[in-house]
Amino acid sequence: MKIGILGGGQLGRMFIQNALKYDDQFYTLDPASDAPCHNISYFTQGNFNDYETVLNFGKDKDVVTIEIEHVNAEALAELENQGIKVVPNSKIIKTIQQKILQKEFYKAHDIPSPEFEIMDGSSDEIKMSFPFVQKLNTGGYDGKGVQIIRSAEDLRNLWTKDSVIESLVDIDKELSVIVARNENGETKTFPVTEMVADPKLNLLDFNICPVFLSENIQNQIDSITQKFLNAINSPGLFAIELFLDKEGKVWVNETAPRLHNSGHQSQEGNANSQFEQMYRVVKNLPLADTDSLTYSGMLNLVGGEEFSGKVIYEGMDDVLKMPKTYVHLYGKTETKPGRKMGHINVLADSKEELMEKLVKVKAMVRVIAE
Amino acid sequence: MKIGILGGGQLGRMFIQNALKYDDQFYTLDPASDAPCHNISYFTQGNFNDYETVLNFGKDKDVVTIEIEHVNAEALAELENQGIKVVPNSKIIKTIQQKILQKEFYKAHDIPSPEFEIMDGSSDEIKMSFPFVQKLNTGGYDGKGVQIIRSAEDLRNLWTKDSVIESLVDIDKELSVIVARNENGETKTFPVTEMVADPKLNLLDFNICPVFLSENIQNQIDSITQKFLNAINSPGLFAIELFLDKEGKVWVNETAPRLHNSGHQSQEGNANSQFEQMYRVVKNLPLADTDSLTYSGMLNLVGGEEFSGKVIYEGMDDVLKMPKTYVHLYGKTETKPGRKMGHINVLADSKEELMEKLVKVKAMVRVIAE
Repeated sequence: MKIGILGGGQLGRMFIQNALKYDDQFYTLDPASDAPCHNISYFTQGNFNDYETVLNFGKDKDVVTIEIEHVNAEALAELENQGIKVVPNSKIIKTIQQKILQKEFYKAHDIPSPEFEIMDGSSDEIKMSFPFVQKLNTGGYDGKGVQIIRSAEDLRNLWTKDSVIESLVDIDKELSVIVARNENGETKTFPVTEMVADPKLNLLDFNICPVFLSENIQNQIDSITQKFLNAINSPGLFAIELFLDKEGKVWVNETAPRLHNSGHQSQEGNANSQFEQMYRVVKNLPLADTDSLTYSGMLNLVGGEEFSGKVIYEGMDDVLKMPKTYVHLYGKTETKPGRKMGHINVLADSKEELMEKLVKVKAMVRVIAE
Repeated sequence: MKIGILGGGQLGRMFIQNALKYDDQFYTLDPASDAPCHNISYFTQGNFNDYETVLNFGKDKDVVTIEIEHVNAEALAELENQGIKVVPNSKIIKTIQQKILQKEFYKAHDIPSPEFEIMDGSSDEIKMSFPFVQKLNTGGYDGKGVQIIRSAEDLRNLWTKDSVIESLVDIDKELSVIVARNENGETKTFPVTEMVADPKLNLLDFNICPVFLSENIQNQIDSITQKFLNAINSPGLFAIELFLDKEGKVWVNETAPRLHNSGHQSQEGNANSQFEQMYRVVKNLPLADTDSLTYSGMLNLVGGEEFSGKVIYEGMDDVLKMPKTYVHLYGKTETKPGRKMGHINVLADSKEELMEKLVKVKAMVRVIAE
């Protein structure tokens, strides 16, 4: 089958890597000539945000999917009109792309998400009291396009663009759950993972699984995933990012309509990975079992603050000596401060051992430049 | 690093698939334009048995390795002279390529292997009594080039080519062990696996791991692997195929200087797979841990006897519904009787469950043509 992917980054690369177990042809579209997928797929250099480019790319594929959500959803809708299968469909991509539509979607389907207002440019309209969160309607990514406004003084930093103004959750834990639905309507949910973010880079740092939650909290999450899967009316794999607040209530922070950093530890930690599940979704195959096999954790390999240029992974030989420790690099030759260059998955027999190993590995390796 | 691979078949494909976790460039050489590696590597169509072709292919690589042993070893020796790293080295490839040299190697290093004579064309020279095994000196592969001569009558079938004449072992079990050695001299051994061959196609059928062996038998195997790893004087990953006879003695049947069908279940069954280990060897990295995580087994997907043409995997949807069951196809579009098209790995919590699942899966799926 000819599978076209909008985006040629690491998520696409790991998707294709896994799917090489099967007999398909992969086509990717990315503006960067050296994108991680460029040498493992039929590669087209081009802008996945451009209507004509996406239309041309997709028209001769059996199915078109995405590995990034900032794509031209109108072109995907037109491909659907022409009979091309698009996974997830253009409607849900558009809904998730725009924070305002995304929030309205949660509200319409009774999915708990922090209270919000819509702001279309001026701070005068805002009724919510401090502190609150501003999320730009479009273009946010990896923590960009999101800021906390704590006081009247902070208001001068307010972005004067269409935004969601959202109440600030008093976060106890950041959780994530990856869910999948195929065209036949079959659904499957991965075990919940817990994230520990690096406050400086605002990129996912450690991610661990499984997380032991009270029955009440697990029930809230199950209710959210069920409502979400019933509401979407589209095949797809989605990462639902959750806040658990200090009073034990679960809120949806946001959803990604694609493979997600918070699912990477599933590569070795679960019976099947998010990448395998996405493949099953794209081909409308029976969904894969997602059980945790053991304790698993993930840490991102992020370009060091001071370094730009040809990448060196300092200390990597020591990491490779550690048992049940799995290095995943993304085929990026150039590092930049904060750039996601790879990740390391770790397996362990207990949570204590897992945290010890993660901390040890993190101290071992540094992403620097020549 | 520029890694060149002689051969572009499924072993190369799975090697590259795994190694996409790292940042290397893969180049493959194969006579078939649609070889399984052709669209996931920089592909050269050409004959890996031709001196000039191999020399040209290898001269600009950082390291050259193999995924099939029937390659031009002289060209590899010349590449070594020119300073190119060859893994495993040309000397051990040549030794293993020629059954006569291979048998003499075992004898010289006190590695138990069935008694043998060298025959250079005529049956008159043979001193060994019936029944015995004839193995052609060169060109044998997947059970081809091997026959049993049971009687004077069978002698008319004797091949009149350079051969090894070997005593026939009264086989209780066929075992296999995959060993690795890197340039630094570090060595690592996978747990022993047991093979159950399909007598008709003479291709590996089920392969299971771990195998519970008496201390005496395990000690014999450990002694063999140690002697072998000490003797080779080359980095490499090798599959040592063993016979356990009915009196409890272990014999080396033959060795492959490469990734091997009997190691496929390591993809999900072991802490790291043979493909990861081969990568570590090729790059001279610390070797990976090889522990069995659980019971694992593998069955080959072989083209049905009656079918030639565009392949269909009948029953595959049912297989995909089974938990802890992993389908690996090789990207071959055309099936032929007996052609290795893929394999399926299965995990289980006990040997009984494993055998049940393997038999069930085998009955579920058929490789047919359109």
